Amino acid sequence: MRGRGPAMAEEAAVRAQADAVRRLKQDKADPDEIAKEVAKLLEMKAQLGEDEGKHKFVLKTPKETLTGKYGEDSKLIYDLKDQGGELLSLRYDLTVPFARYLAMNKITNIKRYHIAKVYRRDNPAMTRGRYREFYQCDFDIAGQFDPMIPDAECLKIVHEILSDLQLGDFIIKVNDRRILDGMFAVCGVPDSKFRTICSSVDKLDKVPWEEVRSEMVGEKGLSPEAADRIGEYVQLHGGLDLIERLLQDPKLSQNKLAKEGLGDMKLLFEYLTLFGITEKISFDLSLARGLDYYTGVIFEAVLLHQENEHVEEAVSVGSVAGGGRYDGLVGMFDPKGRKVPCVGVSIGIERIFSILEQRLEASEEKIRTTETQVLVASAQKKLLEERLKLISELWDGGIKAEMLYKKNPKLLNQLQYCEDTGIPLVAIVGEQELKDGVVKLRIVATREEINVRRESLVEEIRIRTSQC
Amino acid sequence: MRGRGPAMAEEAAVRAQADAVRRLKQDKADPDEIAKEVAKLLEMKAQLGEDEGKHKFVLKTPKETLTGKYGEDSKLIYDLKDQGGELLSLRYDLTVPFARYLAMNKITNIKRYHIAKVYRRDNPAMTRGRYREFYQCDFDIAGQFDPMIPDAECLKIVHEILSDLQLGDFIIKVNDRRILDGMFAVCGVPDSKFRTICSSVDKLDKVPWEEVRSEMVGEKGLSPEAADRIGEYVQLHGGLDLIERLLQDPKLSQNKLAKEGLGDMKLLFEYLTLFGITEKISFDLSLARGLDYYTGVIFEAVLLHQENEHVEEAVSVGSVAGGGRYDGLVGMFDPKGRKVPCVGVSIGIERIFSILEQRLEASEEKIRTTETQVLVASAQKKLLEERLKLISELWDGGIKAEMLYKKNPKLLNQLQYCEDTGIPLVAIVGEQELKDGVVKLRIVATREEINVRRESLVEEIRIRTSQC
Repeated sequence: MRGRGPAMAEEAAVRAQADAVRRLKQDKADPDEIAKEVAKLLEMKAQLGEDEGKHKFVLKTPKETLTGKYGEDSKLIYDLKDQGGELLSLRYDLTVPFARYLAMNKITNIKRYHIAKVYRRDNPAMTRGRYREFYQCDFDIAGQFDPMIPDAECLKIVHEILSDLQLGDFIIKVNDRRILDGMFAVCGVPDSKFRTICSSVDKLDKVPWEEVRSEMVGEKGLSPEAADRIGEYVQLHGGLDLIERLLQDPKLSQNKLAKEGLGDMKLLFEYLTLFGITEKISFDLSLARGLDYYTGVIFEAVLLHQENEHVEEAVSVGSVAGGGRYDGLVGMFDPKGRKVPCVGVSIGIERIFSILEQRLEASEEKIRTTETQVLVASAQKKLLEERLKLISELWDGGIKAEMLYKKNPKLLNQLQYCEDTGIPLVAIVGEQELKDGVVKLRIVATREEINVRRESLVEEIRIRTSQC
Repeated sequence: MRGRGPAMAEEAAVRAQADAVRRLKQDKADPDEIAKEVAKLLEMKAQLGEDEGKHKFVLKTPKETLTGKYGEDSKLIYDLKDQGGELLSLRYDLTVPFARYLAMNKITNIKRYHIAKVYRRDNPAMTRGRYREFYQCDFDIAGQFDPMIPDAECLKIVHEILSDLQLGDFIIKVNDRRILDGMFAVCGVPDSKFRTICSSVDKLDKVPWEEVRSEMVGEKGLSPEAADRIGEYVQLHGGLDLIERLLQDPKLSQNKLAKEGLGDMKLLFEYLTLFGITEKISFDLSLARGLDYYTGVIFEAVLLHQENEHVEEAVSVGSVAGGGRYDGLVGMFDPKGRKVPCVGVSIGIERIFSILEQRLEASEEKIRTTETQVLVASAQKKLLEERLKLISELWDGGIKAEMLYKKNPKLLNQLQYCEDTGIPLVAIVGEQELKDGVVKLRIVATREEINVRRESLVEEIRIRTSQC
């Protein structure tokens, strides 16, 4: 909720103000003006405050951080007031906090993933994995690099995740904000309407073109001719062939932005060909993505409707990953506006989990929820102390061991517990075994039992449960 | 922030109300009374609401959840108001949400850990790892079990964590709320003052007895005689010997609660002896723990001051873990008050990290921050496509590989990158290697280079980077 890094931005601002005061004094400016600027400087210093340690910190309210970054989605930001009446917000996504983090810590080069909760003031729909509080999983690459190499890596990762999880058939739609803006320009959309028309286009995956068109014309005041021209472009989707065709398009090819975007799109497809994943990639002119901060390539992965023998109910979840390039966002947090180009992707893990869970339920497969390697059990009564001693040895040896928290559990109940929870081994202490210096190791699956010398038990369990 | 599980508690309440209405009708009760109860039932049903799917959910505001669980610490709860004016709170710890989760989902038996953020409206002290927003790591065992077995496991885990992390010498103080309450009773503290006197005692790790005594007598109205009697007890600490002595104490041994607590404490020490960890455990009558919800054993791990040749500044962080038994908390969330006994521990990972970081800084050791196994590099220009193809093969083979996001990086820069980041291997493609169907594999540490057939590269990298 609150910034934690050194308040570099504020310190820089204070230094700038101190310089300004110094210059005014040197220039023998109007004393009233000097006094005004000195007062401002003192206030800034007071606000900066001091921590008890050697570093200085300022606790930032993140409201300023979120304002003006999300466009029409801003209404979904979860605003809150704390006891002191300060306006706070719960983070809407992980991208804006990431950009702020880079700017505050002057990081110009990083690749990282981040799994954490975000908040939306939206109508929740639990059965489809849509909540007000939910996890996101973001992967981003920040830094000044040669074009489209990190962008291609992001798409490769999305492809890898969706393939490995075997979520069924999917498609990753790609487009570029510059191509969209160029398209809007050649269609006759006034500059001032680019963002709002873009967010109308963004609705095309949910509502039919006719509705989007009437929003553009009716609510947003676009001319019907411009809307119809957009309508022709946004039904286009394809691969390298479509890119080549649009590069020859008499109108688009005259627009600088569109040409840049199409050139990079071509490069991206070349790299994706080397990665062997173009089969699942669709260059789609109707893809817009609602958020304001994207500046280049944008993409969104959607699961395709599927008939599955195991899944009775149709699993309809739509978009499961999305992202794009946002080269201007870090600069918005830097006092000097220094830019750090970024590209990243957000994986909808909550939705993906809801699909996996539904599928698992349908398949009636049993999944182990613990990694316990062995249950420490006893064959007779009054052996609690011996079980505690043995489990301690196993824990100290790095073995994942459990025992029933009962003084005198029945052996049958202990074995049943292993069957129920999928624990593969049982280490049984009994009076005879204690005398002989051995432990009886039972393999739950086969019911085979062997005596293992106590000093070899850790190693024996390790071997029998190691699987790579 | 908001409850997500099926609203079982509410549904149960609605069913109970429906039963009550049915009985009133059967009994031909006063029609006015029936009408009143029906109205109540309808209101409850309306509140329960309906989700669009097959399940019913109620979104709970967590304010009610937190109120009345933390005693005098409640002032540190971070209250917030959302746009709708609802009073919300950010979670203060992970224990109360855990208890709520068990009650809502009728779970009577679970062992789990949970690492997540909590919020305190406190004065932050960054240099000592104290923040308003910070991570906690909790481990809890819930269920009706034989006495002190799960409690001993919690202490074993704390001991294991602090030992394995080599945080220096530490001590785990243990006490029992029942011993404290018994002690207060025999010292002449009125029942109504137990909780507030307990939170005075809790301050003994930070302020001297004289100050605590004057708070008890001056602010909280305790008689000086009672305070002095408490003063004698709270200076006691030791092991099994002290427990035995107090079991013979003429006053304490007459108090039922104290006797129960001391009996369990003895059992706990027997189990800890079997775990081999009593050396670091101190039964300490001054340990109180501020929170209201504890009902039995309580404990707190503190790092002892240490002189370390590597660490210039004294690292003073105090308590790094704490917890105890809270048998009543789950019942507070259950509509029928059904109890689920729990014991758990909270690890102060943020403080522990701050110690580890300070130590690392002092030692000037370099720690790898990535797990990258191999850098895919090129020896000549114009090999970007070949690098992309190779890295894709490695990724598909499960190898952690990176490459520089440059079209034509210099070989020297690529090798330097490995030196800087600790990547152990470089897979180099060059024109000759491509012709020969091999990749040059360079071992960064030794500068040795070998040619590996391309189809064996994944296996070769796996072997050379496998360490267990």
